[in-house]
Amino acid sequence: MAEYPEQIERLTDMFRRLDGIGKKTALRLAFCVLDMPEEDVRTFADAMVSAKNEICFCRVCKNISSSELCSVCSDETRDRSTVCVVEDFRAAMAVEKVREYKGLYHVLGGVISPMKGIGPDKLSVRELLSRLDGSVREVIIATDPTPEGETTAMYLSRLIAPLGVKVSRIANGVPVGGDLEYADEITLRRALEGRYNIE
Amino acid sequence: MAEYPEQIERLTDMFRRLDGIGKKTALRLAFCVLDMPEEDVRTFADAMVSAKNEICFCRVCKNISSSELCSVCSDETRDRSTVCVVEDFRAAMAVEKVREYKGLYHVLGGVISPMKGIGPDKLSVRELLSRLDGSVREVIIATDPTPEGETTAMYLSRLIAPLGVKVSRIANGVPVGGDLEYADEITLRRALEGRYNIE
Repeated sequence: MAEYPEQIERLTDMFRRLDGIGKKTALRLAFCVLDMPEEDVRTFADAMVSAKNEICFCRVCKNISSSELCSVCSDETRDRSTVCVVEDFRAAMAVEKVREYKGLYHVLGGVISPMKGIGPDKLSVRELLSRLDGSVREVIIATDPTPEGETTAMYLSRLIAPLGVKVSRIANGVPVGGDLEYADEITLRRALEGRYNIE
Repeated sequence: MAEYPEQIERLTDMFRRLDGIGKKTALRLAFCVLDMPEEDVRTFADAMVSAKNEICFCRVCKNISSSELCSVCSDETRDRSTVCVVEDFRAAMAVEKVREYKGLYHVLGGVISPMKGIGPDKLSVRELLSRLDGSVREVIIATDPTPEGETTAMYLSRLIAPLGVKVSRIANGVPVGGDLEYADEITLRRALEGRYNIE
């Protein structure tokens, strides 16, 4: 018994393949699975396989979806004249949670990063341009305020603006509830530049 | 799209049922699964179900096993006159890793804890006693050096000693590589009490 039974080793190895799960955690999770009722383990396994099999990307906006057209793109009540460009589905979900934005999305699938060898051709840029067929009046670029996100925003705005479509970028500034003392200089400079009148 | 597709929510819910996995981690793990090749997801799901179905407890020592008799109990070369009593299979694995101990094990399945309502009847104490049929000469009690572990050790020694079986307890002391400065007082007192001659 220098090792756990083979079935446990195998399950532990699979857990280790998940991001951020090390050897000890993987073993702990494997034993959690053993502690679950048999019925639930089967449900877990089924959930895994069906998520993998049934989740695909929306034909239009490239967001994750359980059908060819995602729930946003297929929603007739959404404003089709505005497209919010995000890096990934997590960002789209974050914007969606505000419950304020009523337009459509476009998921790039990343940002331009020469360091990582990611050029515009690896992102869904062509698909974005093909959507700008006259019905879209504004593209809101909501990539992260990181160097790569800014570069991508700049790149997209130079591609899109000549097509006569308004291009906007989400505002930078101090986060609500944040503390000026801990804000970095660039954020604070942007917050000052972006100041607005109160009266 | 106020929520992720149902398949993802379902998988995330299952991950959340594992100990120490919160909402955000569960979501991250679910997406890791989606990023895996389909073949691997199926292997993962199969590993889960087969671990649950095929892992059982050894008939003799109550350790986890993939057969009725675990690999230690079925190993003819092990010393059958010594039984090391541990709280759970993790502890048995820890002792086994030393590659020094050649006897058998007995997995209690916990420790006596009035606070948690765990009495000796909820542990495999009866099974341990039934193993002391004359062939066992020494029982090494290797429960954790916690109040509950100590109580359990005391309880077992009072049960076993009258049967004419030698009962021993693993030593307390400063861990090898540890720092006396950070050793707690009880550990240090035990280390002093347990001092041995060097010459």
